[in-house]
Amino acid sequence: MKRPENRPLQAAVIGDANPPVEVLQAAEQLGRKLARLGITVITGGLGGVMEAVSRGARESGGLVVGIVPSSRLEDANPWCTVVLPTGLGHARNVLTALAGDFVIALGGGAGTLSEICFAWIHGRPILLWEGSGGWTDRLEGAPLDSRASSTIHRCRSLEEIERVIGEWFGDARRDSS
Amino acid sequence: MKRPENRPLQAAVIGDANPPVEVLQAAEQLGRKLARLGITVITGGLGGVMEAVSRGARESGGLVVGIVPSSRLEDANPWCTVVLPTGLGHARNVLTALAGDFVIALGGGAGTLSEICFAWIHGRPILLWEGSGGWTDRLEGAPLDSRASSTIHRCRSLEEIERVIGEWFGDARRDSS
Amino acid sequence: MKRPENRPLQAAVIGDANPPVEVLQAAEQLGRKLARLGITVITGGLGGVMEAVSRGARESGGLVVGIVPSSRLEDANPWCTVVLPTGLGHARNVLTALAGDFVIALGGGAGTLSEICFAWIHGRPILLWEGSGGWTDRLEGAPLDSRASSTIHRCRSLEEIERVIGEWFGDARRDSS
Amino acid sequence: MKRPENRPLQAAVIGDANPPVEVLQAAEQLGRKLARLGITVITGGLGGVMEAVSRGARESGGLVVGIVPSSRLEDANPWCTVVLPTGLGHARNVLTALAGDFVIALGGGAGTLSEICFAWIHGRPILLWEGSGGWTDRLEGAPLDSRASSTIHRCRSLEEIERVIGEWFGDARRDSS
Repeated sequence: MKRPENRPLQAAVIGDANPPVEVLQAAEQLGRKLARLGITVITGGLGGVMEAVSRGARESGGLVVGIVPSSRLEDANPWCTVVLPTGLGHARNVLTALAGDFVIALGGGAGTLSEICFAWIHGRPILLWEGSGGWTDRLEGAPLDSRASSTIHRCRSLEEIERVIGEWFGDARRDSS
Repeated sequence: MKRPENRPLQAAVIGDANPPVEVLQAAEQLGRKLARLGITVITGGLGGVMEAVSRGARESGGLVVGIVPSSRLEDANPWCTVVLPTGLGHARNVLTALAGDFVIALGGGAGTLSEICFAWIHGRPILLWEGSGGWTDRLEGAPLDSRASSTIHRCRSLEEIERVIGEWFGDARRDSS
Repeated sequence: MKRPENRPLQAAVIGDANPPVEVLQAAEQLGRKLARLGITVITGGLGGVMEAVSRGARESGGLVVGIVPSSRLEDANPWCTVVLPTGLGHARNVLTALAGDFVIALGGGAGTLSEICFAWIHGRPILLWEGSGGWTDRLEGAPLDSRASSTIHRCRSLEEIERVIGEWFGDARRDSS
Repeated sequence: MKRPENRPLQAAVIGDANPPVEVLQAAEQLGRKLARLGITVITGGLGGVMEAVSRGARESGGLVVGIVPSSRLEDANPWCTVVLPTGLGHARNVLTALAGDFVIALGGGAGTLSEICFAWIHGRPILLWEGSGGWTDRLEGAPLDSRASSTIHRCRSLEEIERVIGEWFGDARRDSS
């Protein structure tokens, strides 16, 4: 996959607004890890997984973007460096999926599943954090359909996520300057 | 569910652009049935299931609407009474799902699955034609997530589809005048 | 301009939700005329000009489509044969403009002006009903920019509108069967 | 207007892909000024005014976001810190307008005018750089319609732009930390 130069890698992190507490903790740690790797974190801008990964990334000095369904800048969680109101309602899920060089999913219901579908259709590689519940686990890492448009990979730890990102894009840390 | 009066019932029919021939035949028969019930057929406007159900409905005197991803009226299949170009690419899947008082799925890959997700989120009742393959069968009729926003029902025949529509909306045929 | 065969001509009619009463009367007469010509009327589905032209068309036996900003079928005016909820807010203005083989504007504020912009960009010919106020008159029929993407024509009467449509698309009435 | 705290002010800068060279120079200087004020620059991500203001801002250490019409990260100009592909075509103009706490327009054709319309509808204050041509000058600073949703202000210099931003939002520089 083509490596960006002047632009840091972008991770779209997707998941529930109301996940169990251990998923929130994982999301926050994921945010810290991505920020340390110099990877921009992009989410749907609201609560739950979106807020936890944003807080982790921002507190570790990372760049955080929230793409919110409403037309109001004020509706994003307070950890976003940049807020993008869309006014598109749930159709903003297409934008969240497209915003990543790759996508990381934790848990998730129908909204998260729609984002996984769009990532798949548009060829964004997908990381599923195994054990986080919801559609991330229900999919069991199987391809979504017969087109070979994307890759789905299950990871069990932050170390594995870092390793897979490195395999896909080279050493992300060079982006962080 | 609230019954429309001055407006005929609308069925959003979703499915693959490249399904097996028996799914195409089922889609065409479904189109004929919906037209005879006076139900407007709305699809994503392209080929495969979308075209087959549109041809069946149009040839039986039905009203057919195609919501296409491009900005060109010419890109729809030739059975549409009305074409709605969107220029939104795959984001038009949100509109297809929203366009039905209910949704009927046959087979389908990631695009169809995204439409099922949006139908679920927005409370459109969903009919899955059992045995048509793809996500229609992979879902096994289970709820998409814990919100009780919609209903998923599996049907095995046109007769069962007609019966369920009648249960949900009353006798659709009164709409056809 | 290419003439549709199996599909009746589509007119996107755009204008204010709160126009003066004489603009409402003009819109209703326009709806009757378009219906008699066998032309499908498509609007943004809400009140004012949208509702008046829809009522005129529907009462004259025409086909009427409303593309509403919300995700609810119930939010359209009561004259629509088909309702398309979008959930896209004001972004649905792009769809209204794209939905016409041509566009007719009466009066109008910033929303109508955005629709005229999108019609221009996407090459939909534009009819301005002269004397109806708002941006329809403020534009004075001048091109929107230097690209020769579309045509803007000012009309003063229903007869002139019918004549121009005939010049652009041939006798629309052949579509009405 | 409410002042953001944890989030730097966001300026949506809109204008032509093919403007005269003096407009490009003004856009680049504007980018430098906004970056020095700690204001995030958001554009439609393509060439002309969008690229010039992005280059100026990025070279001065600013944060630059490009919201592109296609679904490809590679389609943005090379000065974006973050790229947001939308796949929405010209409908992404709604997002560009919504992305700013305020909007600055230079020159511009129908696309820029549609963005001014959406900024107006959604209450984003609008700065027109007087003398830059196109719709920025054709509008002559007049309100777009009778709703008092937003403010339109004409400026003749970078100093005046800085002064007006200060009046609207307080000292933007406090955001730049």
